[in-house]
Amino acid sequence: MSKTSVCIVGSGNWGSAIAKIVGVNAKNLPQYEDRVTMYVFEEMIEGKKLTEIINTTHENVKYLPGHKLPENIVAVPDVVEAAKDADILIFVIPHQFIKGLGAQLVGKIRPTAIGLSLIKGFDIAEGGGIELISKIITKHLQIPCAVLMGANLANEVAEEKFCETTIGVKDKKMAPILRDLFQTPNFRVVVSDDVDAVEICGALKNIVACGAGFTDGLGLGDNTKAAVIRLGLMEMIKFVDVFYPGSKLSTFFESCGVADLITTCYGGRNRKCSEAFVKTGKSIVELEKEMLNGQKLQGPITAAEVNHMLKTRNMEDKFPLFTAIHKICVGEIKPAQMIDCIRNHPEHMDCSDGFAKL
Amino acid sequence: MSKTSVCIVGSGNWGSAIAKIVGVNAKNLPQYEDRVTMYVFEEMIEGKKLTEIINTTHENVKYLPGHKLPENIVAVPDVVEAAKDADILIFVIPHQFIKGLGAQLVGKIRPTAIGLSLIKGFDIAEGGGIELISKIITKHLQIPCAVLMGANLANEVAEEKFCETTIGVKDKKMAPILRDLFQTPNFRVVVSDDVDAVEICGALKNIVACGAGFTDGLGLGDNTKAAVIRLGLMEMIKFVDVFYPGSKLSTFFESCGVADLITTCYGGRNRKCSEAFVKTGKSIVELEKEMLNGQKLQGPITAAEVNHMLKTRNMEDKFPLFTAIHKICVGEIKPAQMIDCIRNHPEHMDCSDGFAKL
Repeated sequence: MSKTSVCIVGSGNWGSAIAKIVGVNAKNLPQYEDRVTMYVFEEMIEGKKLTEIINTTHENVKYLPGHKLPENIVAVPDVVEAAKDADILIFVIPHQFIKGLGAQLVGKIRPTAIGLSLIKGFDIAEGGGIELISKIITKHLQIPCAVLMGANLANEVAEEKFCETTIGVKDKKMAPILRDLFQTPNFRVVVSDDVDAVEICGALKNIVACGAGFTDGLGLGDNTKAAVIRLGLMEMIKFVDVFYPGSKLSTFFESCGVADLITTCYGGRNRKCSEAFVKTGKSIVELEKEMLNGQKLQGPITAAEVNHMLKTRNMEDKFPLFTAIHKICVGEIKPAQMIDCIRNHPEHMDCSDGFAKL
Repeated sequence: MSKTSVCIVGSGNWGSAIAKIVGVNAKNLPQYEDRVTMYVFEEMIEGKKLTEIINTTHENVKYLPGHKLPENIVAVPDVVEAAKDADILIFVIPHQFIKGLGAQLVGKIRPTAIGLSLIKGFDIAEGGGIELISKIITKHLQIPCAVLMGANLANEVAEEKFCETTIGVKDKKMAPILRDLFQTPNFRVVVSDDVDAVEICGALKNIVACGAGFTDGLGLGDNTKAAVIRLGLMEMIKFVDVFYPGSKLSTFFESCGVADLITTCYGGRNRKCSEAFVKTGKSIVELEKEMLNGQKLQGPITAAEVNHMLKTRNMEDKFPLFTAIHKICVGEIKPAQMIDCIRNHPEHMDCSDGFAKL
């Protein structure tokens, strides 16, 4: 049986952290090719090419300084060259680059390859609304695409601190192959066949984190924050139920669901910037400049994309928290109005006989 | 139709906070008697009886200072006198007093009354293992008993900060009656008929909070803490499934479940003392003296009660986190060993084909 070869498409903070895991497993397990290619967008660092630095010092000095990558991780500056022989393509790049990279790879990869997306966030579909990144990969490259999501802050994964992750994959044959490629004593994998729900959790949690941040900024306390997080989770479940029917409630108990949501709502930049939004009165754009070096905050973007879908379907009132968070981000309502918007939440009302509907 | 009369059995911090809500609703809603009795364990405060202070100043100066109680809340020092005419008996006392109070009330209450327990924690059953407080109330007083649990820190509820709560009640007729007695614009009720699960969440969360505190004490970071909280939630679900079969997964998404768990694992005394346990190396008993004025910490007690049940049934390995937390609390293993105990958690292993079992 021929060995499975792996390419990591991307080499940022998260891509490099995951390369540590994948490199060691590919080397140690007989079913994988030792050599793992990593597509690195070429940059010059103090006069040297980043790929050359990685291939000689085995450290991504720009995006994961202080951590050695396994020596079988080979940085390649040409994405086609990196990907052409791979059976498993691990996509871990900022989501705005996926269409461009996909276009470069069309017809240049193994037709039997499978993709695995570690990319959080949606893309905007033609005509508005959202498009899942895994679906874009499948559409462009004509390969199936699994996802990996969880409470996985990159630096903590690189430090080999214990955590869990969720791999969403439909194909039963691929499930153990993907699990074994990632599982380590400190990176515990649970596999789910509920792929869409796994992926959507990773994007929607950022909307909820904005709500948690507003709550912090308003000084509303622990009870209120817990209520906002819970109602956010219920809207995540409802969103998946309405737009991606057939998903399972249990998926939301996995690392991709409740665990990632908690981490994002207590730590994380969306929470932090949203707290500052309330306390300083500055706009999201101003805060992105000041706090994120101009990088875009994911929560407000996702909230806008989701709101577009809800509005066109006349469903804003079914998702009052998502709707309020979007309106706050764009300045339509004040942060202090958020609680009024969720006071009569469908979760409190769907019970003419007193009982909840869920 | 005669009006429903209400008695609050208990007047601590939480009992007084809930009296603010129940008093206002009983006064404003036509279906309830205006006068709500509150059983107050008589104490002398600067030479005055606490009941007299409450009935003249309408403030529980000892347990909820700074908040006015509604004037229709009437403090009564005799529990039989307070309870004898009530249709709804709201129990909100420390759980070690429930059997003694129950014994006093036998045969002295309306046979048609129903109980509602706000008491968190288990009691120890004869022969070891746990007994639910609501079941003790039912057994002693021969009345049905509902429960109210949620992410409800008493002082924040008294400050009328927005939050949610879960009422667990089997009787469909009682559901709207209980809901309306508690619901306010800032205290949002969801009713569930999954009574056992609602009650058990309120006790088991304290075990998980100890695990979260150990993680904090060990400095393991956000990913690990999220994993510990999630695995704790999975063991809560499993515990209910094994010992109280027939419960619903959806109950754990209510305020009594995930919301209360989050609040307890990020705030809360169990988390705090457990963090100090790791950092100082002191015993739980020493920390109770220093940090809680000698009061008992609920998490270690509940962990011991649950461990007794698991051990006698030879099921410790199915609940590795609960088991590890108990062993850490009693000094059998070191806090640093906790992660080793959950590395091969059944949640990571119940999947011969790669897929999770849930």
